[in-house]
Amino acid sequence: MTPSHTPAPDPAAPPLRVGMIGYGFMGAAHSHAWRSAHRFFDLPRTPQLALLAGRSAEGVAAAAARYGAEATTTRWQDVIEDPSIDVVDICSPGGTHHEIALAALAAGKHVLCEKPLANSVEESEEMAAAAAPMTWRLRKETAGSGALGDIGAHVIDLAQWLTDSDIEAVSGTLATVVPTRPAAGDAQGLGGKGDTSGEREQVTVDDVALFSARFDTGVLGSFEATRMAQGRKNAMRIEISGSAGAIAFDFERLNELEVYDATAPAGRQGFTRVLATEPEHPYAAAWWPTGHGLGYEHTFTHQVADLVRAIGEGSDPSPSFEEALHVQRVLAAVEASDADGSRWTPVATDAPAGEVNR
Amino acid sequence: MTPSHTPAPDPAAPPLRVGMIGYGFMGAAHSHAWRSAHRFFDLPRTPQLALLAGRSAEGVAAAAARYGAEATTTRWQDVIEDPSIDVVDICSPGGTHHEIALAALAAGKHVLCEKPLANSVEESEEMAAAAAPMTWRLRKETAGSGALGDIGAHVIDLAQWLTDSDIEAVSGTLATVVPTRPAAGDAQGLGGKGDTSGEREQVTVDDVALFSARFDTGVLGSFEATRMAQGRKNAMRIEISGSAGAIAFDFERLNELEVYDATAPAGRQGFTRVLATEPEHPYAAAWWPTGHGLGYEHTFTHQVADLVRAIGEGSDPSPSFEEALHVQRVLAAVEASDADGSRWTPVATDAPAGEVNR
Amino acid sequence: MTPSHTPAPDPAAPPLRVGMIGYGFMGAAHSHAWRSAHRFFDLPRTPQLALLAGRSAEGVAAAAARYGAEATTTRWQDVIEDPSIDVVDICSPGGTHHEIALAALAAGKHVLCEKPLANSVEESEEMAAAAAPMTWRLRKETAGSGALGDIGAHVIDLAQWLTDSDIEAVSGTLATVVPTRPAAGDAQGLGGKGDTSGEREQVTVDDVALFSARFDTGVLGSFEATRMAQGRKNAMRIEISGSAGAIAFDFERLNELEVYDATAPAGRQGFTRVLATEPEHPYAAAWWPTGHGLGYEHTFTHQVADLVRAIGEGSDPSPSFEEALHVQRVLAAVEASDADGSRWTPVATDAPAGEVNR
Amino acid sequence: MTPSHTPAPDPAAPPLRVGMIGYGFMGAAHSHAWRSAHRFFDLPRTPQLALLAGRSAEGVAAAAARYGAEATTTRWQDVIEDPSIDVVDICSPGGTHHEIALAALAAGKHVLCEKPLANSVEESEEMAAAAAPMTWRLRKETAGSGALGDIGAHVIDLAQWLTDSDIEAVSGTLATVVPTRPAAGDAQGLGGKGDTSGEREQVTVDDVALFSARFDTGVLGSFEATRMAQGRKNAMRIEISGSAGAIAFDFERLNELEVYDATAPAGRQGFTRVLATEPEHPYAAAWWPTGHGLGYEHTFTHQVADLVRAIGEGSDPSPSFEEALHVQRVLAAVEASDADGSRWTPVATDAPAGEVNR
Repeated sequence: MTPSHTPAPDPAAPPLRVGMIGYGFMGAAHSHAWRSAHRFFDLPRTPQLALLAGRSAEGVAAAAARYGAEATTTRWQDVIEDPSIDVVDICSPGGTHHEIALAALAAGKHVLCEKPLANSVEESEEMAAAAAPMTWRLRKETAGSGALGDIGAHVIDLAQWLTDSDIEAVSGTLATVVPTRPAAGDAQGLGGKGDTSGEREQVTVDDVALFSARFDTGVLGSFEATRMAQGRKNAMRIEISGSAGAIAFDFERLNELEVYDATAPAGRQGFTRVLATEPEHPYAAAWWPTGHGLGYEHTFTHQVADLVRAIGEGSDPSPSFEEALHVQRVLAAVEASDADGSRWTPVATDAPAGEVNR
Repeated sequence: MTPSHTPAPDPAAPPLRVGMIGYGFMGAAHSHAWRSAHRFFDLPRTPQLALLAGRSAEGVAAAAARYGAEATTTRWQDVIEDPSIDVVDICSPGGTHHEIALAALAAGKHVLCEKPLANSVEESEEMAAAAAPMTWRLRKETAGSGALGDIGAHVIDLAQWLTDSDIEAVSGTLATVVPTRPAAGDAQGLGGKGDTSGEREQVTVDDVALFSARFDTGVLGSFEATRMAQGRKNAMRIEISGSAGAIAFDFERLNELEVYDATAPAGRQGFTRVLATEPEHPYAAAWWPTGHGLGYEHTFTHQVADLVRAIGEGSDPSPSFEEALHVQRVLAAVEASDADGSRWTPVATDAPAGEVNR
Repeated sequence: MTPSHTPAPDPAAPPLRVGMIGYGFMGAAHSHAWRSAHRFFDLPRTPQLALLAGRSAEGVAAAAARYGAEATTTRWQDVIEDPSIDVVDICSPGGTHHEIALAALAAGKHVLCEKPLANSVEESEEMAAAAAPMTWRLRKETAGSGALGDIGAHVIDLAQWLTDSDIEAVSGTLATVVPTRPAAGDAQGLGGKGDTSGEREQVTVDDVALFSARFDTGVLGSFEATRMAQGRKNAMRIEISGSAGAIAFDFERLNELEVYDATAPAGRQGFTRVLATEPEHPYAAAWWPTGHGLGYEHTFTHQVADLVRAIGEGSDPSPSFEEALHVQRVLAAVEASDADGSRWTPVATDAPAGEVNR
Repeated sequence: MTPSHTPAPDPAAPPLRVGMIGYGFMGAAHSHAWRSAHRFFDLPRTPQLALLAGRSAEGVAAAAARYGAEATTTRWQDVIEDPSIDVVDICSPGGTHHEIALAALAAGKHVLCEKPLANSVEESEEMAAAAAPMTWRLRKETAGSGALGDIGAHVIDLAQWLTDSDIEAVSGTLATVVPTRPAAGDAQGLGGKGDTSGEREQVTVDDVALFSARFDTGVLGSFEATRMAQGRKNAMRIEISGSAGAIAFDFERLNELEVYDATAPAGRQGFTRVLATEPEHPYAAAWWPTGHGLGYEHTFTHQVADLVRAIGEGSDPSPSFEEALHVQRVLAAVEASDADGSRWTPVATDAPAGEVNR
């Protein structure tokens, strides 16, 4: 007997063809998201990892087999020049972002750009300007290299997003505590987790960044980004206090929120550990029943879901190149403050920067 | 210019063709695992979700589109009869497992069976016997319905696996604290998380199960499975103490272990919160850098990785039907003890059960 | 110049003269409480540690100097026979409680009796009967020796008090996991914390007690008392769930409560860590500002405050001898259940015990 | 029969007569410590709360009855002029410390001075100079008023003591977030915990202080002192990282240490929650068995024990007036930095302050 197989429905909408440039740790996370988002979220078009670019022919071939890319190339320009590609996903090293993003934007592609946006505020300004009439998106919005750029950029972005306000001035200090470190391994690799070579490299950037920040709402913040905090494996931690209460989050427990309700009776006050897996929480309804936590890569899947929906709607999701540029300007202000004896330093804006009133 | 696309390598090994029966919450988790395991683990063959079976033609078609199944059918027998199918993945309601598994085994398929293995110890014994000359596997090994079967089965399995020993006698109490509950929704649905109908259903099974257990090593255990623990969203918690220390785990913090080293100096003793994301931890090396946690569905991906590797090696991974049968016998012994005033009751074995010496 | 010293006021009420029998670890805690309670609580009479009894003349003299007792004796009968003594505080080993308490009651003294109340239910019944027309109090209400009596008694008492209900039946299991243990040291000593002798003693009692309990409200409880839980230094932990929420407490964090409000919005639910130092919490207003925690000995100071106030009012505070007798009967029922294959066993009452309906 | 009372031994050493000036919240804590220290620690002399001074005759009489002081006076000069007084314990408001301490030092008394040492660095320098040929001690070493002085002073002191190093330069920012606050109540009162008047007072000092600090070892620290952290009832929290590991402490869990051992195997690393009640921990052996926590006032009892022992030995315990002066100079440097746009500012030393090299 022939099984009465019903073929899976072919959705009317054409797939969203993605060309990815670079295939290291971020390539593993991004490709998983491109493969998974439409399995859990209703998306207007189905992403398709159509083309993967990398410098080494063998390396990119192995990565494509691993990640499920349909085709490969050793020239990133092929991704830009392929008219069937809708989205360019830039996962290559930071020094290449400026050139690739400008070319992709000029070719009319949607762009998803890993952090850092570029090597300098100037490059970022050029990219943001190029993106302005168009609809571009990127995941993380910052250039960086040391603890400030790699770690601080995340928490600056998060602090501004959660408080819906911008940092307008900073007083900062950078330091390099450990002058050499284990070599970081191949950034173009396939997601290898650790260094096994025993080699050490000279540290040319900060490994501790401390700064105070003033937001445009008048709020004060205290920031610390460091590679020196023993035992804090991935402690991107934030705590925000206001008149109604406080909320705290630690990435090491990424399914939890600590919430303090200042309006509760005095004898019942305290931080509540909320397992943020109820369907009321953003994105949670698409996943598992209450109490079944998500992992790191879900953040990328959510990003893809947001991006594909925005492409379908023609809207402009956050974070934008403009927001990324602002984060980069905060980082630059911290560096400038450090160079000026940690004096309060205004963050550059498109309008002429005025005096900082404190 | 024509891009110099390099096609992704076509591995020599034929794909491992999977036929899945049922497509509810477990179908969502299993299909994600079949799609993802070979992206992160080196597997001898690449799983392919070839055929999905369900009773409703529209339902199974929608699920296949969502899950990425190549074809669908409304007759589960088609999965068994299709000679190209290597693995039968049984995700349908528990009452159907016995018939489907026996048919799949008779047809020479590899079998992955969701819990419960069957409705009764007798059915399970028949299934285990059918599987004995062959290589079969299943994820969860238990029949059940109330708190004992749904929740207790997990922790019985975990306790036996972690201690590498078997429960040989129990003293148990079952109770039904709440006589009606919100209706559970469509078990064949697409992973919806909650009940929205407002309807209530009669509870015919236990919602609290308390039992003490004696392992064949002489160890005593205290078990509690309940739907009545307010605020414990998914607290499958276990703590094991031995002469060298203790270890504790709570599924609500599934990336953490609490480890106590009794050999540490007295002034330094305490439970250590280990973020189990270092590459030293099982499965962790395949995923993200240290400090980047995993989520619920990774457990299914790991199961698929184990299963496909074992099929490649011709080995017999744990958990087996035999182990599942033992868990089901423990559950039956708890029920028998409850019916006998909670008296200590031996767990059935293949050998004639002797007297329980305490 | 002579300082214009104003003498401290002499309160009109006569002091409450306390005679303490025994001076080990409990003597240190009790004497601190007798000295401190009136410094923080408004009490109708001021306690005075008038007389300390112990078998060794040197030992009791050293203890009196340490504890601030005004006089000493080597005969406990002197405490009973001294007409100026108002309260007899029994801190001697458990085997002596029955005789001392009966004598003190017969002499018309107020009695504070450390746990265990007596060696047997029979002795306890006699003591409770002797106390019935009178006003007697005691701190802990149980006889015991192994993990069940030493540890389980605390949590039985706590569970009944917090739920305002009585345990009416139990199914229990006792075991002795470790047959020898380090010698416990001199129970009549001066509060030494550890064993340094290296000697081991035969364990003649249980070191693990597991039991399920049914309360007279129909509630089920699961209890575990063990000396075998590595890393749990003093984890008297309790968790109570009801329709409105849950509350949990762990003695290792004795200034904290974990509170779960089931009526909170789903997305905000979770256990709240309440630092129970607000003045709204019992006894807290007498101590330090919010956030300044209390220690172990404060429990004894609170006991003295309650006792002295009740003596002033002529009222009968909890825990009473009657309540202690009930705890002892629960312990006896657990032992009887263990001896009967862990079958459910009713707890004795003054009324003829009926059948246990489950 | 006459009881064969043995009188408590009369120690050969004369008592250590203490005169306390002020009787508010700190008076409650200090007097408890003077009464209790010799009950738990072997001290060369027994403290005796001989004389209590306060401005209100009724107030000081009530306090003396409560605290157990033998006599009272409304003139603090009486304490200084009484030749039988060995130790002057200054618990009066900060503005009076300079005058009282100088007088007590001139009269040859031992001095225990609550924080703040004085109102200004200049006053503190004078007091430290007066104490230099002599043996003086004080509990907390700082002047202050706002969040910086009240809260920051504690953590500056703790950070310097734990790291055995001095802060040599700071970059700081002060802010006043809330311009009015509930009136703080009577600082000379009897330990009342809260404000019940409903009145509000103008805030003239900072309620947030953020600063970075450089220690003379080259170590960088990030400090935050604020009254604005909702839900942090008394979170004096410190975390120190070094090459061998890290240690963290939070005063809200004052019996616990979090310890990270960077030398542990990678898969076993994590913060260990150490219940610091083992006899190996400082002071712990004098108190209760393992797992029985201490409270806030024990810190004062330990201070008295240290002080009385040092008086017996003729030694000079930490913290000294000299150390207090240094803390006050750090506070002054934070204020100076804030006034200079948060620029790095050196902490004054007795030696001429050189340039800060960063």
